[in-house]
Amino acid sequence: MKQINVGLIGYKFMGKAHSHAYKDVGMFFDLPAQPVMKALCGRDEAGVKEAAAKFGWESYETSWEALLQREDIDLVDITAPSDAHREIVEAAAQAGKHVFCEKPLALNLEDSVAMWRAAEKAGIKHMVGFNYRRVPAVQLAKRLIDEGAIGEIRHFRGTYLQDFIVDPDFPLVWRLKREIAGSGPLGDLASHLIDIAHFLVGDIGEVIGMEKTFIKERQIPSSMTGLSATSKGGAMGKVTVEDATNFLFQFDNGALGSIEASRMCPGRKNYQTFEINGSEGSLSFSFERMNELEFFSRSDASYAQGFRTIQVTEPEHAYVEAWWPPGHVIGYEHTFIHEVKDLIEAIAADKMPQPSFADGVKCQAVVDSVIESAKTRRWVEVPKVTL
Amino acid sequence: MKQINVGLIGYKFMGKAHSHAYKDVGMFFDLPAQPVMKALCGRDEAGVKEAAAKFGWESYETSWEALLQREDIDLVDITAPSDAHREIVEAAAQAGKHVFCEKPLALNLEDSVAMWRAAEKAGIKHMVGFNYRRVPAVQLAKRLIDEGAIGEIRHFRGTYLQDFIVDPDFPLVWRLKREIAGSGPLGDLASHLIDIAHFLVGDIGEVIGMEKTFIKERQIPSSMTGLSATSKGGAMGKVTVEDATNFLFQFDNGALGSIEASRMCPGRKNYQTFEINGSEGSLSFSFERMNELEFFSRSDASYAQGFRTIQVTEPEHAYVEAWWPPGHVIGYEHTFIHEVKDLIEAIAADKMPQPSFADGVKCQAVVDSVIESAKTRRWVEVPKVTL
Amino acid sequence: MKQINVGLIGYKFMGKAHSHAYKDVGMFFDLPAQPVMKALCGRDEAGVKEAAAKFGWESYETSWEALLQREDIDLVDITAPSDAHREIVEAAAQAGKHVFCEKPLALNLEDSVAMWRAAEKAGIKHMVGFNYRRVPAVQLAKRLIDEGAIGEIRHFRGTYLQDFIVDPDFPLVWRLKREIAGSGPLGDLASHLIDIAHFLVGDIGEVIGMEKTFIKERQIPSSMTGLSATSKGGAMGKVTVEDATNFLFQFDNGALGSIEASRMCPGRKNYQTFEINGSEGSLSFSFERMNELEFFSRSDASYAQGFRTIQVTEPEHAYVEAWWPPGHVIGYEHTFIHEVKDLIEAIAADKMPQPSFADGVKCQAVVDSVIESAKTRRWVEVPKVTL
Amino acid sequence: MKQINVGLIGYKFMGKAHSHAYKDVGMFFDLPAQPVMKALCGRDEAGVKEAAAKFGWESYETSWEALLQREDIDLVDITAPSDAHREIVEAAAQAGKHVFCEKPLALNLEDSVAMWRAAEKAGIKHMVGFNYRRVPAVQLAKRLIDEGAIGEIRHFRGTYLQDFIVDPDFPLVWRLKREIAGSGPLGDLASHLIDIAHFLVGDIGEVIGMEKTFIKERQIPSSMTGLSATSKGGAMGKVTVEDATNFLFQFDNGALGSIEASRMCPGRKNYQTFEINGSEGSLSFSFERMNELEFFSRSDASYAQGFRTIQVTEPEHAYVEAWWPPGHVIGYEHTFIHEVKDLIEAIAADKMPQPSFADGVKCQAVVDSVIESAKTRRWVEVPKVTL
Repeated sequence: MKQINVGLIGYKFMGKAHSHAYKDVGMFFDLPAQPVMKALCGRDEAGVKEAAAKFGWESYETSWEALLQREDIDLVDITAPSDAHREIVEAAAQAGKHVFCEKPLALNLEDSVAMWRAAEKAGIKHMVGFNYRRVPAVQLAKRLIDEGAIGEIRHFRGTYLQDFIVDPDFPLVWRLKREIAGSGPLGDLASHLIDIAHFLVGDIGEVIGMEKTFIKERQIPSSMTGLSATSKGGAMGKVTVEDATNFLFQFDNGALGSIEASRMCPGRKNYQTFEINGSEGSLSFSFERMNELEFFSRSDASYAQGFRTIQVTEPEHAYVEAWWPPGHVIGYEHTFIHEVKDLIEAIAADKMPQPSFADGVKCQAVVDSVIESAKTRRWVEVPKVTL
Repeated sequence: MKQINVGLIGYKFMGKAHSHAYKDVGMFFDLPAQPVMKALCGRDEAGVKEAAAKFGWESYETSWEALLQREDIDLVDITAPSDAHREIVEAAAQAGKHVFCEKPLALNLEDSVAMWRAAEKAGIKHMVGFNYRRVPAVQLAKRLIDEGAIGEIRHFRGTYLQDFIVDPDFPLVWRLKREIAGSGPLGDLASHLIDIAHFLVGDIGEVIGMEKTFIKERQIPSSMTGLSATSKGGAMGKVTVEDATNFLFQFDNGALGSIEASRMCPGRKNYQTFEINGSEGSLSFSFERMNELEFFSRSDASYAQGFRTIQVTEPEHAYVEAWWPPGHVIGYEHTFIHEVKDLIEAIAADKMPQPSFADGVKCQAVVDSVIESAKTRRWVEVPKVTL
Repeated sequence: MKQINVGLIGYKFMGKAHSHAYKDVGMFFDLPAQPVMKALCGRDEAGVKEAAAKFGWESYETSWEALLQREDIDLVDITAPSDAHREIVEAAAQAGKHVFCEKPLALNLEDSVAMWRAAEKAGIKHMVGFNYRRVPAVQLAKRLIDEGAIGEIRHFRGTYLQDFIVDPDFPLVWRLKREIAGSGPLGDLASHLIDIAHFLVGDIGEVIGMEKTFIKERQIPSSMTGLSATSKGGAMGKVTVEDATNFLFQFDNGALGSIEASRMCPGRKNYQTFEINGSEGSLSFSFERMNELEFFSRSDASYAQGFRTIQVTEPEHAYVEAWWPPGHVIGYEHTFIHEVKDLIEAIAADKMPQPSFADGVKCQAVVDSVIESAKTRRWVEVPKVTL
Repeated sequence: MKQINVGLIGYKFMGKAHSHAYKDVGMFFDLPAQPVMKALCGRDEAGVKEAAAKFGWESYETSWEALLQREDIDLVDITAPSDAHREIVEAAAQAGKHVFCEKPLALNLEDSVAMWRAAEKAGIKHMVGFNYRRVPAVQLAKRLIDEGAIGEIRHFRGTYLQDFIVDPDFPLVWRLKREIAGSGPLGDLASHLIDIAHFLVGDIGEVIGMEKTFIKERQIPSSMTGLSATSKGGAMGKVTVEDATNFLFQFDNGALGSIEASRMCPGRKNYQTFEINGSEGSLSFSFERMNELEFFSRSDASYAQGFRTIQVTEPEHAYVEAWWPPGHVIGYEHTFIHEVKDLIEAIAADKMPQPSFADGVKCQAVVDSVIESAKTRRWVEVPKVTL
């Protein structure tokens, strides 16, 4: 079988999730090509060496430049912080490697477009890591919408709420610095919902948003590389991203939308939810119960209508046949396995994977417009980007 | 319009619920006859007088014998403790009054049958207070079953859990004395589910049960008349009913059943639930969310099946048109209003109300069989009683 | 006991709900004064006469002017369509009657302020019908917030979704005409949530909103007086209110808020929900399960934190002691009984009821600001109105 | 690092789940020894060869006798059908291999005891595959119970409902044959709950049960090895296990229990639920929402008590630190990874893993007693087995 040699940059939270996906995908799916875990890349040699051994990578590198120079790498997977994305992608494209890049694509629209352009120019395959599209329940939502089960769509409302920085003693990690992260929950969380909205409803035409940082200073951790940091330094630093964002929008097709993302909601852990109302029915989803989709149909008998809690665990549901019997639920990490499956299949078939950088750019255009609208306090038309 | 003059015995919890039903029913339903709140009856003159004024009764009596002698009473409604039911019903029947009697019909099967016989002999209308049949969601369950929506029934499982006597300091009220109450949660709570099982599934053929009293002694209250008692005496008395009961059964039609009732389940307040599984679908209900019915249908599209949460608040649902717009939920007391509506309609139409004493007897036959099975530790065939 | 004589204007949906409240309140609550159902008022004599008899009013009137002239009326209760509110209130105030007026107070802020001014000038008691404040679960939310259980509030998000006009054949009832209703779901539905936000969180400082009418023309019914109309005429008329509204806002205390209201959400019947996140915990409520409040506390043991589903049916919860044992749920209509209880107590104690016209005005100021912001597509500062 | 060489028998549903566990465990947990996937064993050479390659086993065997003879195998993992367990275990014990055996341990108590005896005599480590103990939420239930959070336990009620054989066209697979499977949902499903009851509450003293086969004949599939069979033969065969079982029991500590297991419940997919009520609180769990545990505490403020939905996804919850951030849920397969982790740790530490064959025997004693009680229609005292 054809092999696709993978080099992965980053080995923390996302790096681990991606590593696991390459490790497991072939056990559950019949793939047209075999992903080979060639090299793991990270700056700290001790750390990357240990991670490579633990995760099952054949080798490791301590610089991404070195990784890109290796001839035995076909696909570069980037889970580094957002500020590093553009440079790596451009170099990878130039080196002719396919690229799988975590979201958000970049710190801003300009960088995102540059990445897309570079990838297209190089003729490589490119994919952006909107993994929540790969939840079987989200795929079922897509199927039902495409079949017309909820009719013409009128409303999309999404929330993505977490609480991991509610404690004022939570330190100033890199995700709280604009120069590294681009934005706060807007780019980190809301971007997933923007992509879901694009995927399920259509293009977003204009937006108006607001944002707020409730806790303006936090302690600087001794290390700023992790998602959480246990050792805190004494000095305080400024939080430069928002703690919460909230925006309204109109889709080009006339539907109304709203998205709220916040890291300051006690009890909400990974509370990514959306509800879509159409002329014939409604859909509702919450990631914390990711194996379920709520579906209301106006075509049920009038006295027996209600939101159905569909357990999206039947063999006929997307991706599920590879897993366990009905009701034997799957989890977060499976979204990455599904991503890798689709990516490998696309590369093997010489097709562009979905979502590609085009989708990453489209999402970034909305993100930037929200930021601008929060600053100018006006509705902002989302730019339509083409190459 | 024809009038039906009502005399009500008892003015505590159930007496209040029934009073309210007579007061309100005519405002919401178009009735063929008008119930007139003639007289309220209770032993304590000060108490009954005040209650009569507050609830809107025209007069009061302090002995039920006096009430029965009054010529201006057409219908006697009995909410007195269970040990008094038989004597009152027999006298009322002899006096030619229609009777509406709270459940459980009596302390045991013998008394129940005597009551049924007396009522039939006198040719009066008789009804037993299984009010939960009148929840619109339960009526919808009946409708769906009758339509074949869940096919041939195979399983009924019910629980009726409360926690009001978990505290060992809760006093020895009358409901905890077998000579007054007949039994504990079996007659008080499980009887409702037995009636629901009869109503929705069919006759119960044989049973095996167990029961247990966890807290064997409690403080004797200064007054034992109320559901709860705030003033406690110093002396301890023996709890003579079970705290919990649990039984299995087979329906005559081959379905399997189980019912558990307990007053020792922290957090369960009025947790009356049942689930019914058939060859084509399932139904699930919980009283604490009484405006909802869960319905699963195997005839939905295979990839879109799930339990539907039907809000049973549409005008086409039983009783609902009289109330508010969809989603404007109703509560516990409405079940009594619905009972009275059906009772008045039956009397006006010279038909036997449902459920009648025949149903009360059928329920009592199961209750007694469960008690016997718990004692003998054997399966007990439920006697089929006919007059 | 002192009596308060009531005259009620309107006898349809709201008129019935109010009538029922006066009828029942004294049976469940010990009041310092007795509301007497003196007169029901409506334009159609046959209709109002029948309703008066059915609901238990002593007399009826066919013009509100006549009602106001009656000396035996102490309190005027107004459930007429919104466009009639101002004129009636001003006349009632001049006549020295206390006034209980349904929400929204008026068609616009100017009218609302005029009403408030007239009432204050006349020295009468005035109350506006934000009945959802009287849900015991909402009162519990207030108590928990006041106790500091969720700390400093940062987020309020509310939705009020219905589906009763999703069907394009639903006719052009008065609620769909701006000249009568003032606005669509904004004034009808969102106004309730604005009041809840005021009640639980604080004053709203500025807003930005959008609105949309998806179905622009509907059939003109032969009668436009009812909530729903069964007989439809052939002619089409223009829908002049929005089908949906969606707005963001900032509270004066720094919290962020959002409210969405729509009548185009299949499966959502009376889906009034809100969630509030604070520095120490969160609260979540949905009216369709009005007997429950969700509460998350960061002070629970770290390994045992979770949203608690509190059944707000304990005697110590607001209003509940008057009703049934725990878990024996109440419904929509009880909110009106609680309103009337509080109104009667306030009048008897010579205190201003809550919420008064001041709250109605404050709500209207937000409603008008949302309308303006949707028109101008800009953030609008909500005017602070004082007399 | 020390290595533990594993040989796995069986490569279908359970074999895959176990293979995956060995493959992944070292990536997420720091183990004291490394499990090495030495050999996969199955009767069909083509099938086992392909599976071995796909799952990552170094070699394969087509007879378990051959596997047991290999000197490079330390641990034998048995996922073959139940009728093969005893013979393999006895041979493995004699060969001095540690044994991990899927549940139910054997076809009956006698065989189970023999296996336990053989294992003990050989001095090997032995473990039985009650994987649901390894759900973090179940571990949290254990912790809360051990801490006294729910006080003295009074009630355990469990259901394990599925619907995969509701369709009468579902073929006669091996799980429906008593000679291979031992029993139906009793041994397959209820056994998990029996183990949970043992784990969380204590030993079961006596039982009474009933069982039923609703569909008595099914089509014989061409192959009877799989869980489901797509190719059906024309001939019909007798279903020799029950479709549903239902039993009551008493714990030695005085608590009451009930367990129902059925494969005939439309809409219930892997609906393994239990609720435990104690003197101070309650716990409730449903596997289909396996990342959640419901907990009610009587020690919460009286006006703010309610079942808490704990998301058991915090780093301090059992096993969770190895996985993803809070709210990033895990699934069914993780229970096997946790099992293998605990097994490897126990072997490395020269301790007996939990649950051992002693627990498997204890469970089988209950299973056999239920079968006997269903036959004799009497309460059966569960034998206490010691070696």
